[in-house]
Amino acid sequence: MTRGKFITFEGGEGAGKSTQARRLCERLRAAGHEVVQTREPGGSPGAEVIRNIVVAGDAERWSPMTESLLMYASRSDHLEQTIRPALSAGRWVVCDRFADSSRAYQGAGGGVAPEFIEALDRGVVGKDQPDLTLIFDLPVEEGLQRAFGRGLFETRFESKGLAFHQRLRDGFLAIARAHPDRCVVLDATGSEDEVAARVWDAVTARLA
Amino acid sequence: MTRGKFITFEGGEGAGKSTQARRLCERLRAAGHEVVQTREPGGSPGAEVIRNIVVAGDAERWSPMTESLLMYASRSDHLEQTIRPALSAGRWVVCDRFADSSRAYQGAGGGVAPEFIEALDRGVVGKDQPDLTLIFDLPVEEGLQRAFGRGLFETRFESKGLAFHQRLRDGFLAIARAHPDRCVVLDATGSEDEVAARVWDAVTARLA
Repeated sequence: MTRGKFITFEGGEGAGKSTQARRLCERLRAAGHEVVQTREPGGSPGAEVIRNIVVAGDAERWSPMTESLLMYASRSDHLEQTIRPALSAGRWVVCDRFADSSRAYQGAGGGVAPEFIEALDRGVVGKDQPDLTLIFDLPVEEGLQRAFGRGLFETRFESKGLAFHQRLRDGFLAIARAHPDRCVVLDATGSEDEVAARVWDAVTARLA
Repeated sequence: MTRGKFITFEGGEGAGKSTQARRLCERLRAAGHEVVQTREPGGSPGAEVIRNIVVAGDAERWSPMTESLLMYASRSDHLEQTIRPALSAGRWVVCDRFADSSRAYQGAGGGVAPEFIEALDRGVVGKDQPDLTLIFDLPVEEGLQRAFGRGLFETRFESKGLAFHQRLRDGFLAIARAHPDRCVVLDATGSEDEVAARVWDAVTARLA
């Protein structure tokens, strides 16, 4: 059994990741792959329980340190219950947010030491790193405006203020520079069809 | 302001830790100290929310790896909201279970790599290690029988079987050997008054 491919979608709020993840999954299925579409935090029954306590409540409910531990707890369950079994069975996995969101939100955005997050990542994710990570990039104001359009604010993270979201964008771009082997920065401006075409180009170029 | 002392109670199920923690707090207060009695998992509003998802459900609900992350998430909130503010204000803190329970339950008992737990501990607890840890030791069968007496089984951990609880006891004794500066192994057999006298002797000998 050939192991499936693991693709993650990353980026700030309002970048259109969820819509594009759905469209990519449809196109991969049309191309004959078995595909599991999932998202973080969450993606398994246990991880969804943790998600509920992480994304609810006011912005300062959890410190970035506590948040990073809750996120990796949820990721640990998600990997064990959903991602690893799917990849082992030859399925492709498309995940809306994964470990780079911890690096960006709790690390670059929240000030948790990068070495601490990497220690969590080695223990929890280990060798199951994504084969390809698409980093959806767009100006912070545009992303928040789009997130605003779908009902401000769905989660604690959207309400953290402009400076936080700018650190987030810079953080994602720094991750892409640090991991050029697995990361592609994707221009997330323009129409849904335009972005979908860029996603497909990146996936076929990297994983064909 | 002199920093308060931080005392933790550790050991397997049914060792009488909660009762003895209450009695020690009373005696410390009678001796003129301001004392905060707390427990893990839990001990702050956020940590209690995490506790609720960790101790409930069947024994295999969470893997030891996921469990270790949830425990340190709860510990992080507990330290930030309860323990550090109390110690800084000169109060003594008596905590029923702390980081050694992660080392014993998820590490020795559950098989999580000790290096991973120590990485969590450095990031979350850091320099706020307990000044004194009392390890309540008694034969596994006796402890489980006592836990049974108060209603089998209150938590997922009590239902994990004899071999698990034997690894747990061995784990706690190994921790005491590795940290003789802060740990005292306490014979937890005998009457409540006998054990309370041993607790008081250990506290006055180490922290007088």
